[in-house]
Amino acid sequence: MPISWNPAAAGFRQTTAGRGHQLDHWLAGRLQQTIAPAAVGVELWDGWCAGDTDAGALLIHDRGALLRLIVNPDFEFGELYTSGRIAIRGDFVNVLERLSRLSVDTPISLRERAALWTALPNGLFDARRNIHHHYDIGNDFYQLWLDANLVYTCAYYPERASTLDEAQAAKLDLVCRKLALRPDERVADVGCGWGALALHMARHYGVRVQAFNISREQIAYARTRAAREGLAGRVEFIEDDYRNVSGRFDVFASVGMLEHVGRRSFGDLAAVVRRTLDRHTGRGLLHFIGRHRPRPLNAWIRRRIFPGAYVPTLAEVFAQILEPARQNVVDVENLRLHYARTLQHWRERFERAEPAVRARFDEPFARAWRLYLAGSECAFTTGWLQLFQVVFAPADRRLHWTRAEVYSSGDRR
Amino acid sequence: MPISWNPAAAGFRQTTAGRGHQLDHWLAGRLQQTIAPAAVGVELWDGWCAGDTDAGALLIHDRGALLRLIVNPDFEFGELYTSGRIAIRGDFVNVLERLSRLSVDTPISLRERAALWTALPNGLFDARRNIHHHYDIGNDFYQLWLDANLVYTCAYYPERASTLDEAQAAKLDLVCRKLALRPDERVADVGCGWGALALHMARHYGVRVQAFNISREQIAYARTRAAREGLAGRVEFIEDDYRNVSGRFDVFASVGMLEHVGRRSFGDLAAVVRRTLDRHTGRGLLHFIGRHRPRPLNAWIRRRIFPGAYVPTLAEVFAQILEPARQNVVDVENLRLHYARTLQHWRERFERAEPAVRARFDEPFARAWRLYLAGSECAFTTGWLQLFQVVFAPADRRLHWTRAEVYSSGDRR
Repeated sequence: MPISWNPAAAGFRQTTAGRGHQLDHWLAGRLQQTIAPAAVGVELWDGWCAGDTDAGALLIHDRGALLRLIVNPDFEFGELYTSGRIAIRGDFVNVLERLSRLSVDTPISLRERAALWTALPNGLFDARRNIHHHYDIGNDFYQLWLDANLVYTCAYYPERASTLDEAQAAKLDLVCRKLALRPDERVADVGCGWGALALHMARHYGVRVQAFNISREQIAYARTRAAREGLAGRVEFIEDDYRNVSGRFDVFASVGMLEHVGRRSFGDLAAVVRRTLDRHTGRGLLHFIGRHRPRPLNAWIRRRIFPGAYVPTLAEVFAQILEPARQNVVDVENLRLHYARTLQHWRERFERAEPAVRARFDEPFARAWRLYLAGSECAFTTGWLQLFQVVFAPADRRLHWTRAEVYSSGDRR
Repeated sequence: MPISWNPAAAGFRQTTAGRGHQLDHWLAGRLQQTIAPAAVGVELWDGWCAGDTDAGALLIHDRGALLRLIVNPDFEFGELYTSGRIAIRGDFVNVLERLSRLSVDTPISLRERAALWTALPNGLFDARRNIHHHYDIGNDFYQLWLDANLVYTCAYYPERASTLDEAQAAKLDLVCRKLALRPDERVADVGCGWGALALHMARHYGVRVQAFNISREQIAYARTRAAREGLAGRVEFIEDDYRNVSGRFDVFASVGMLEHVGRRSFGDLAAVVRRTLDRHTGRGLLHFIGRHRPRPLNAWIRRRIFPGAYVPTLAEVFAQILEPARQNVVDVENLRLHYARTLQHWRERFERAEPAVRARFDEPFARAWRLYLAGSECAFTTGWLQLFQVVFAPADRRLHWTRAEVYSSGDRR
């Protein structure tokens, strides 16, 4: 482990923490050892360095930050970065990606195991509070950096060079084609965001959609848009929880909602699918962030960004949702790298909008969001997270003869 | 329940069982009630009928057959049909299909539950005996009704009208393209049948294949073919169990083998994948018969056709094989209806070859195989069984940007 002094390191924020003690240096050295395979160094407030800091370094601005980072890195990294007590030297995304790569196949820790076991079901009230926390911070905030249609889920890039707007439109249409929508069918769009998918379905496929969401601001925006675009007669936006979906549908679509259901509440979702999806005409699609092994979401993301969220494996989704709902897997596509690209686009747009974000919120808010977007991008790049699109239907349902029917039929993007 | 007498029923085999007692008729009536939703009647040896027998009937030729059918229908149906003590009136496949449809979403029975719990791991010796039972009954038997390449797994029909030979060639190539094979890569083909896939890979993609199988007759045939076609230098056929696969591979392919592993031995397969698949270049494909809910294979099939076999759900395969093997799901395709079509083609060819089969084996053998092929066809038509192709790779592996790379690249069929 190369150790060096770098008191005049470029970009290092001078703090009042004073010169570190030998114990600080020893601890920082131990910390650096854990991230050494990522070739990321550690630099303390007094300029003391562990590891090679040329290719990227974690800058720690005070002793408290060092200790907290050692005790609970998963959570404290986000906290300390948000409050500016640690920083990254070097290319932000590149360093995060190298750090993220370290943990892709590490065994699950005791702390993570405890988080899995102590997770509670998300009740109706919790769900509303959790969703409010993230989605009701102002539609104009999301308009700063999402695509024109406000689609806040993984896009689908037909070509690597597709723009974000093209890719989001292509995603909406891909979902419709996978579901083989036919005119006048009844669709439940559960967790509808700002309504882009529901409106696309109604406009291009002539279906009737009931779209559910518990984010008040999103629903209000979606209703206004439906009225403006003359689709209010075909798309009904309903401010309600997925558990209260009632009626009978030909199609169940849920894009980017399953992550918020929580692993103790999958049975509730299974019951909804079983109760509302037509036995003869029904089929559905789940589009969600997933994992290749069971593991809780990062502690900081779970606390500050997506409270109550859980990112499941396919095995969990199949055994706990589709099997009890009497549904069968028709098709699974992993769009992990498309989410990395989507997040790259979001982050770049977010960075361009950062002055406006800082003006409207504050510096810690901007830092937290920058870390969340960049960290998520890295998680998909490195395979820490996956993005699954699952098409399901009752076991005897015929959807497509081959995939050619999905991919060659008129793409409406 | 309509009840009638039909002593001169067309096609009814006269037996020496004599006139049935009232108890026989009562039992037959009860039996018919259980299959009434399939509109299949029951007709006894004395011409007594329960239900409407016009659209199809189950003909029961003696009292013992009636009792055995009532006590253990899952197993005895096959036994009694094989020995000619029951028969089907009406279109054989159509009646079977209606019967099969009855059970797609029935709850798992106590007997089935017991079968799941009492299943033992398939040891090396059991595996060899089980495979010998089905696959070593003569290559010339299979040549009577399989395609020219002797591919004994679900085909892929690019068009509904494709021939069996076209569809099997298309399947082999689809597997290669999903795996994105590159020249000189090392491939393990585990459970290689008569070698068609291994030879296709080597011939068209320039890879080096080690192909494993414990069927002596299949291996002998495959070696001869490799030598004749000048591919013996690139394809090595190895008579050994999947558990003994060693070395390091870029690609792990297993088409139609997982069903024979058995649910208590999935961990063995996981260990093989983990041990032999290259961490950086590796990816794999599992092609297998699956289920939408956990359930043992039909008792008669398990005893007479595929001893030791188990047809898993995707959740079981992911949680018990891919997760412990540190693999991630890249793509899943359900080819259920393609297997129904494949089995239809096999059955039609088998029926044309039946005189030869009867001459070589005997009448019960021919009847058992006809039932197995027709019953399997119905199982896929009705969704009782599914056919999954799963592509997997380590969590951070890049395979394709979109599916267009799989489907537009030169199809070699």
